[in-house]
Amino acid sequence: MSAPWDAVSRDERFNEAAIRLGYAFDGEIKIGGNYAPLIRRSDLVFVSGQVPRVGDTVVVTGAVGAEVSLERARIGASVCIMRALALLRQALGSLDGIGAIIRIGVYVHSAPGFTQQSEVADAASDLLVYVLGAAGAHARTSVGVIQLPKSASVEIDLVAAVAQR
Amino acid sequence: MSAPWDAVSRDERFNEAAIRLGYAFDGEIKIGGNYAPLIRRSDLVFVSGQVPRVGDTVVVTGAVGAEVSLERARIGASVCIMRALALLRQALGSLDGIGAIIRIGVYVHSAPGFTQQSEVADAASDLLVYVLGAAGAHARTSVGVIQLPKSASVEIDLVAAVAQR
Amino acid sequence: MSAPWDAVSRDERFNEAAIRLGYAFDGEIKIGGNYAPLIRRSDLVFVSGQVPRVGDTVVVTGAVGAEVSLERARIGASVCIMRALALLRQALGSLDGIGAIIRIGVYVHSAPGFTQQSEVADAASDLLVYVLGAAGAHARTSVGVIQLPKSASVEIDLVAAVAQR
Repeated sequence: MSAPWDAVSRDERFNEAAIRLGYAFDGEIKIGGNYAPLIRRSDLVFVSGQVPRVGDTVVVTGAVGAEVSLERARIGASVCIMRALALLRQALGSLDGIGAIIRIGVYVHSAPGFTQQSEVADAASDLLVYVLGAAGAHARTSVGVIQLPKSASVEIDLVAAVAQR
Repeated sequence: MSAPWDAVSRDERFNEAAIRLGYAFDGEIKIGGNYAPLIRRSDLVFVSGQVPRVGDTVVVTGAVGAEVSLERARIGASVCIMRALALLRQALGSLDGIGAIIRIGVYVHSAPGFTQQSEVADAASDLLVYVLGAAGAHARTSVGVIQLPKSASVEIDLVAAVAQR
Repeated sequence: MSAPWDAVSRDERFNEAAIRLGYAFDGEIKIGGNYAPLIRRSDLVFVSGQVPRVGDTVVVTGAVGAEVSLERARIGASVCIMRALALLRQALGSLDGIGAIIRIGVYVHSAPGFTQQSEVADAASDLLVYVLGAAGAHARTSVGVIQLPKSASVEIDLVAAVAQR
């Protein structure tokens, strides 16, 4: 069922966002190591930290404010969110299975003088609300870290709630 | 209802702490961007990362251990907690609506050689217990990050539980 | 009760891991400051961030990729997990009281060019699965931070769920 506030379904908005970004999120989302892409506990789902990886390649790498521009970091944040949504869609059968996004953590690989972590995170927040409507609202924490796995420019994790049936 | 362990109410202790810090936390707490100051899910409340902002100004900025002293960073941590408490008061009607503080995350904007993140976080922990009594006890994670939004010296997020009625 | 997939109990595997690491985790786990080592809320347990402290000494300190090797950082991550498990055992009476590990956060004190945070975190993930079996699977977020309390090389926090009786 699409959200009542809009005739366009979440899946259609997800696909529109993928086209606008220029990346596909159809295949299996790869996760390395001995852990799970997400863990569901009663009605909460904890999604592991996602870097902007598409297939085998991290597509936005380097310190934001030095090698990487704000605009490019915002694309990276959008890719992280698309991966998280793809994982939720895979686990719940459909994006309509998401009742709410509760919290996102945004870790920005930052040059020492870069202070626009919130502006990077806004791209993630805007995309969640674009795809999910009111259910995309969330609490948020954004910080600047010295490095991330594979030198990714941004990493995002989240906690979602499953839709009530 | 004030906590039974003390004749002084939580609201009174909150006001005392505000006076001691020299800042007011009466107005609406401003949050930028497309996200929520907090999200409630059943009896849990997730509060977004708070920087030491009073009105429009972040009052403690810069790397702790270089531009900013430990003592000043501890004031910053206290302001973060006051903001989080003000948000909870606003959402729950009163500080008495807080059943427990479950977890706080303390992100300290650190010079490379600064290793007293725990001492910064202690100011936050002490203030929570001062205002809320036993309900202010919490799990905690403190780390040193390279930068924070608007060059804030500290950022704190938390998860609280709503009081049982 | 030991996990059915293996005749060796969780407590035995915990003890084996301690011997392999060469550290004891029998005494009380010390936590500084005005906060709790863990907080339980209904069936969730939030464990505070653990550094690789044994007794009074943080046994792995310094920036990984500079003063500290990947291999040594992985030992540090293992000590963090042993501490978290010892705290859960203490709180729940036994490691069999753990129903699931839901999420771990891995903060690696990183030299600017060190990008193997996931490889450090893998040591934590592998140890959880070794001790707890399928219940040790978890969501994970790994980031590189500029500094940690007491210059620890790694800090790990986690959320667990209590076993259903």
